[in-house]
Amino acid sequence: MENANSSKEEEKFRVRKLELSDKSKGFIELLQQLTVCDSVSDKEFEDRFKEISSYGDDHLVCVIEDDSSGKILATGSVFIEKKFLRNCGKVGHIEDVVVDGNARGLQLGKKIVGFLSDHAHSMGCYKVILDCSVDNKGFYEKCGFKQKEIQMVKYFV
Amino acid sequence: MENANSSKEEEKFRVRKLELSDKSKGFIELLQQLTVCDSVSDKEFEDRFKEISSYGDDHLVCVIEDDSSGKILATGSVFIEKKFLRNCGKVGHIEDVVVDGNARGLQLGKKIVGFLSDHAHSMGCYKVILDCSVDNKGFYEKCGFKQKEIQMVKYFV
Repeated sequence: MENANSSKEEEKFRVRKLELSDKSKGFIELLQQLTVCDSVSDKEFEDRFKEISSYGDDHLVCVIEDDSSGKILATGSVFIEKKFLRNCGKVGHIEDVVVDGNARGLQLGKKIVGFLSDHAHSMGCYKVILDCSVDNKGFYEKCGFKQKEIQMVKYFV
Repeated sequence: MENANSSKEEEKFRVRKLELSDKSKGFIELLQQLTVCDSVSDKEFEDRFKEISSYGDDHLVCVIEDDSSGKILATGSVFIEKKFLRNCGKVGHIEDVVVDGNARGLQLGKKIVGFLSDHAHSMGCYKVILDCSVDNKGFYEKCGFKQKEIQMVKYFV
């Protein structure tokens, strides 16, 4: 019985690529839990979706949908940077990982980060990196990450 | 006289986009001062150069060449990430900034970072970010950056 339930759970919280129809499933509202994000028009969403899709496997946005409610519960993205150093190596950059405040404790964040890391690995990256607050350090350590450098920022607005 | 010299200096250490011919001007050897980078064949360099160029203004590698010696003295890169959050905003990611150990004190690093930041700004980014060691924090503060988060990494090799 436990195995049957686990695999049911597994199926329920499957990670998949973002689809155009996810806008109407609360994708933008989910991002708003992370940072400033006003409402985005359907046209703006579609244009940005197409722009990102044009990079193919080099820029992936993934989501977890709650099959019962039809709401997007978690998301994250990764893009593949092509370098000259490390013998023309590649690096995966994970960005914008967010889990719905009402869906904590389901390991959805870990699933998202695992999915994105696996993608970077399969794309031939020698490492995957991300920036996070000190508060989230423990979570990423559980995902197999280690602290390395510091992030610096310059705002234009 | 001082003005004439300054503008001569300005001209001498001009930031420009990476060109294919820069491989024979010590570009790879310069990267080797930053991190692991074995020799790269002409074919590998050309392939990666073309891949990066295919992103147009979304991925820029710049260099400073010493006109008198014909050697590349400094380099850095920036790529433009397209997001859904921040109202479908864009973020510039600065990577692989390095100045030749024999060319310190000429403000070449500052020129490179300024060039890359200006590019990100002109591309409509709301911010530009980078990761660096604690040792380099002071340098980036002089370039107008502030510390924000921490960088986490997971290596595959």
